[in-house]
Amino acid sequence: MRIALGLEFAGTPFTGWQSQPDGRGVQDALERALQAIAGARTGTIAAGRTDAGVHATLQVAHFDTDAVRPDSAWVRGVNAHLPPEIAVQWAKPVAVEFHARFAASARHYSYVLANCPVRPALLAGRVGWYHRPLDIAAMREGAAALAGRHDFSAFRAAECQAKTPVKTLALIGIDAVGNHVRFDFSANAFLHHMIRNIVGALIHVGAGKAEPSWIGQLLEGRDRTVAAPTFAADGLYFTGADYDPAWNLPATRRPLVLPFARDD
Amino acid sequence: MRIALGLEFAGTPFTGWQSQPDGRGVQDALERALQAIAGARTGTIAAGRTDAGVHATLQVAHFDTDAVRPDSAWVRGVNAHLPPEIAVQWAKPVAVEFHARFAASARHYSYVLANCPVRPALLAGRVGWYHRPLDIAAMREGAAALAGRHDFSAFRAAECQAKTPVKTLALIGIDAVGNHVRFDFSANAFLHHMIRNIVGALIHVGAGKAEPSWIGQLLEGRDRTVAAPTFAADGLYFTGADYDPAWNLPATRRPLVLPFARDD
Repeated sequence: MRIALGLEFAGTPFTGWQSQPDGRGVQDALERALQAIAGARTGTIAAGRTDAGVHATLQVAHFDTDAVRPDSAWVRGVNAHLPPEIAVQWAKPVAVEFHARFAASARHYSYVLANCPVRPALLAGRVGWYHRPLDIAAMREGAAALAGRHDFSAFRAAECQAKTPVKTLALIGIDAVGNHVRFDFSANAFLHHMIRNIVGALIHVGAGKAEPSWIGQLLEGRDRTVAAPTFAADGLYFTGADYDPAWNLPATRRPLVLPFARDD
Repeated sequence: MRIALGLEFAGTPFTGWQSQPDGRGVQDALERALQAIAGARTGTIAAGRTDAGVHATLQVAHFDTDAVRPDSAWVRGVNAHLPPEIAVQWAKPVAVEFHARFAASARHYSYVLANCPVRPALLAGRVGWYHRPLDIAAMREGAAALAGRHDFSAFRAAECQAKTPVKTLALIGIDAVGNHVRFDFSANAFLHHMIRNIVGALIHVGAGKAEPSWIGQLLEGRDRTVAAPTFAADGLYFTGADYDPAWNLPATRRPLVLPFARDD
């Protein structure tokens, strides 16, 4: 039987989604907990393979098992075996044709940045930080050049394993609430470090170190070596994936609401 | 010279505010960082001595030093020596008559509870959790009995060292936003575990295990042994203290805005 899961996790203590020899991947923790309930080694596949330190409001995964358990065992039972920073939100049996990665038609991410003179402490590891005031309008103007179907080589990590650098960025949005800035991204798929590289370049523009038009020039140049540095993983959240409604899954997206506003 | 500080911290990694032999108090971390900047051992005094796991949006503290440094050294310099979960927000020279503890006329706390079937993962350690739906109106009705000047012995920890159990609770408010409930408390001073004991009793009422009138009965009975269990420290935040405006301090309160809303 194939089971789909919705997962929430804080990425701070983990080496990223993917299973690692030292067992510190989110996938390792999940598979250990599933094994405790299923009574057998249980491999998992996720919609998006997040980096070290990246969080998820809702990651979608699936696994196959011969164990017959009530859905609640795959939620409460598994959660009892997971570390505090990971929690299964829902579990649902699905047809074996369902595939958390290949059936996802779009992925969604948000990046949260604390924009204030002093570094965040309460949300250390949960938000990125930039200490100088940012020009939101200039960042929006620069971001507009990235929407749509493009070759995103300028924002691609050297170690990226994607078959093609051409992706369709369906949404790039920037919102400011209090001293937090939230960047929202939706695309069919993302290149390795693509969002953190885009956020780094947009902050460069927001801080007045480059004109908004620089973003479009970077994109066209397709040269990673001239872009801004990759921004910290701390503020990045996987917020869900889209699937055909015919799969009849529980919610596979959970938007991130801005955290603790700071009024200083 | 006496310097006042505003501090933000996440209490999760610490044994509480107070200095401990093992050096794991928030105060220990702060005094180590101050020593690095002042070049001498520097004792500190805080407005409120928080327990292990309790956070602060704004703790006020003071210290005396012979070191002459620009205010920015007491913020950015000290922050460079503090762990990620603590950050000085502001520093200001004050008259030697100022005392962070004795000059505070009121203290403010908020408690944030995730009220949802599945335990929180993203905010593990940052919010309390109760899995069954709570009746907010019933909790408000019960809480009303606590407002004002009372003997709070029913909500006092056995190890409490306060001179008197009589305190004036100027505010007790309960707000629900999405799946989070925030409890706000203001008083001249609080007894040890008083807020966590009150929150535990109110949840008892909200879950339908006791009538709202039980809260008033508990208060009048002054017997800690019949009340509900002390609730987890995870969701408790010190949100500031009040001082005479004549001290001319920067903001000594920072209200907590509800974090990541969950729509499940």
